Amino acid sequence: MGGDFAPLEAVKGLKHFKPQTSQPVHLFLFGDEQALAPLLGEHAIDASSYTVVHAPQVIGMHEHPTKALKEKQQSSIAVGFQYLATNRIDAFISAGNTGAMMVGSLFTLKVMEGVLRPTISTIIPKEDGTTGLLLDVGLNADCKPENLNQFATLGTVYAKHILGKENPKVGLLNIGEEEGKGNILAQAAFPLLKQNPRIEFIGNIEGRDILLTKADVMVCEGFTGNILLKFAESLFEINQSKQINHPFFESFNFEIYGGTPVLGISKPVIIGHGISHATAFKNMISLAVKMIDSDLIGKLQASFTVN
Amino acid sequence: MGGDFAPLEAVKGLKHFKPQTSQPVHLFLFGDEQALAPLLGEHAIDASSYTVVHAPQVIGMHEHPTKALKEKQQSSIAVGFQYLATNRIDAFISAGNTGAMMVGSLFTLKVMEGVLRPTISTIIPKEDGTTGLLLDVGLNADCKPENLNQFATLGTVYAKHILGKENPKVGLLNIGEEEGKGNILAQAAFPLLKQNPRIEFIGNIEGRDILLTKADVMVCEGFTGNILLKFAESLFEINQSKQINHPFFESFNFEIYGGTPVLGISKPVIIGHGISHATAFKNMISLAVKMIDSDLIGKLQASFTVN
Repeated sequence: MGGDFAPLEAVKGLKHFKPQTSQPVHLFLFGDEQALAPLLGEHAIDASSYTVVHAPQVIGMHEHPTKALKEKQQSSIAVGFQYLATNRIDAFISAGNTGAMMVGSLFTLKVMEGVLRPTISTIIPKEDGTTGLLLDVGLNADCKPENLNQFATLGTVYAKHILGKENPKVGLLNIGEEEGKGNILAQAAFPLLKQNPRIEFIGNIEGRDILLTKADVMVCEGFTGNILLKFAESLFEINQSKQINHPFFESFNFEIYGGTPVLGISKPVIIGHGISHATAFKNMISLAVKMIDSDLIGKLQASFTVN
Repeated sequence: MGGDFAPLEAVKGLKHFKPQTSQPVHLFLFGDEQALAPLLGEHAIDASSYTVVHAPQVIGMHEHPTKALKEKQQSSIAVGFQYLATNRIDAFISAGNTGAMMVGSLFTLKVMEGVLRPTISTIIPKEDGTTGLLLDVGLNADCKPENLNQFATLGTVYAKHILGKENPKVGLLNIGEEEGKGNILAQAAFPLLKQNPRIEFIGNIEGRDILLTKADVMVCEGFTGNILLKFAESLFEINQSKQINHPFFESFNFEIYGGTPVLGISKPVIIGHGISHATAFKNMISLAVKMIDSDLIGKLQASFTVN
């Protein structure tokens, strides 16, 4: 029921989803049974592929996350997290209230052992047609150096197993190229990244390098990351409104990438954009399947286990 | 002698410069006399319009700013600042070593009374063809809330008298729209901006608003600002390399805007991009003339005088 175009676009996304794995994918649909039934019929979704879980309440896009999640126990977000926490589902996706998704991720589920702060990331299209990962993009507005270092590890594992980068290059987003440049946070994070044995640190990268192939994983605090994410999203909108229609700017369409996983928690959770359409929902389901198939959670956890 | 294409492109910029004012503009050219003479002749620059001041030394683009400025007293940057400090010129422009230009601005000249930290800004093209101002873009990587508040005042005066905005709207670059959102710095800056009687504060703006017309003056610390500036510059380069050639992305060409003035110091100083060509030099000269004609320094100083 989450997102501006729910539940119609979620159902359409379901229709377009074609499992790429040998394992069968079974979908649990959390929402208002009576609203869902006609849509599922209309789009001829194979009834054996899903189970509807009745969740009659809706958390609005502007409701207070913690309050809404506590009071609306029958909302699709609350019920979804209950199912995930009790292993009745393996991954949870929603394009609903982002704050409620964050609160649910952090408090219904557990933070991974050894992780100080979970993070959210965004895919950045590169000018050569490949992609990179930028994190954090808004969950952590103020960071300590060790947070950035952990984001680098989380991003590296994600880039390896989900984006298929064999040896992802990690760059610290900064002003100035040389070690010692930047604000206090970046100056302090640099030596930690340099000593991190789990990542391939290439040093500082600047704003001009974000769209180039210099680094696959680009690390910053969530303030700068969120502003860049939303700036990049606006480029796609401007591209559309001005009918520039160049493939490079088309690649800024977030729907291609689906949604952002919350990294550093004990289960796969994917948060979609409020304005998600069918393509975004389809791609979020594919991403969730990939996260399960690759045992991303296990691989992330392993990278925080002292050995 | 500053910049990657000096002194040729500086001389070509001179050639293209046509004074728009009733007052005559006399240019002082700091550089190697023997290198300049043939170029000035070749481009048929009117000999009555300039005076060459011999400055045989060059501060390289990668030299340590403070050290180079101290040791190379006969460099074009050092001599230029001496002329400016002793009122032999009214404004100083260079596309040379940015660090040396900063050091010269802060230590050869005086910081304006009441200003805690001078700042540098960049022009941001808006999607409707107008322009806005983003500051700080790199002089102040770490800021206090009061710094952001002062940038807002400096930017407002600049937008009024140089960009011709009658009542510039000021936005605080942040994550989230409502008061109380954002990182610790933005949260603390918000009430100061709200109470600042010299600005028209419209509240928080997000990354998606940067290219929209919501705010004319956009305030942030120099870390985020510098990353955005360089990201925007890379958009122009990608636009060119991919031959997208859309006027909107053409408007990201920094040469159109010339260079960035250092705001909050006692004299007009304009810092150009290292890769400046003739157009950038021409526009920097025009900008310097505009800063002098409008008595920008006096207007800036007045906005920091308690009354």
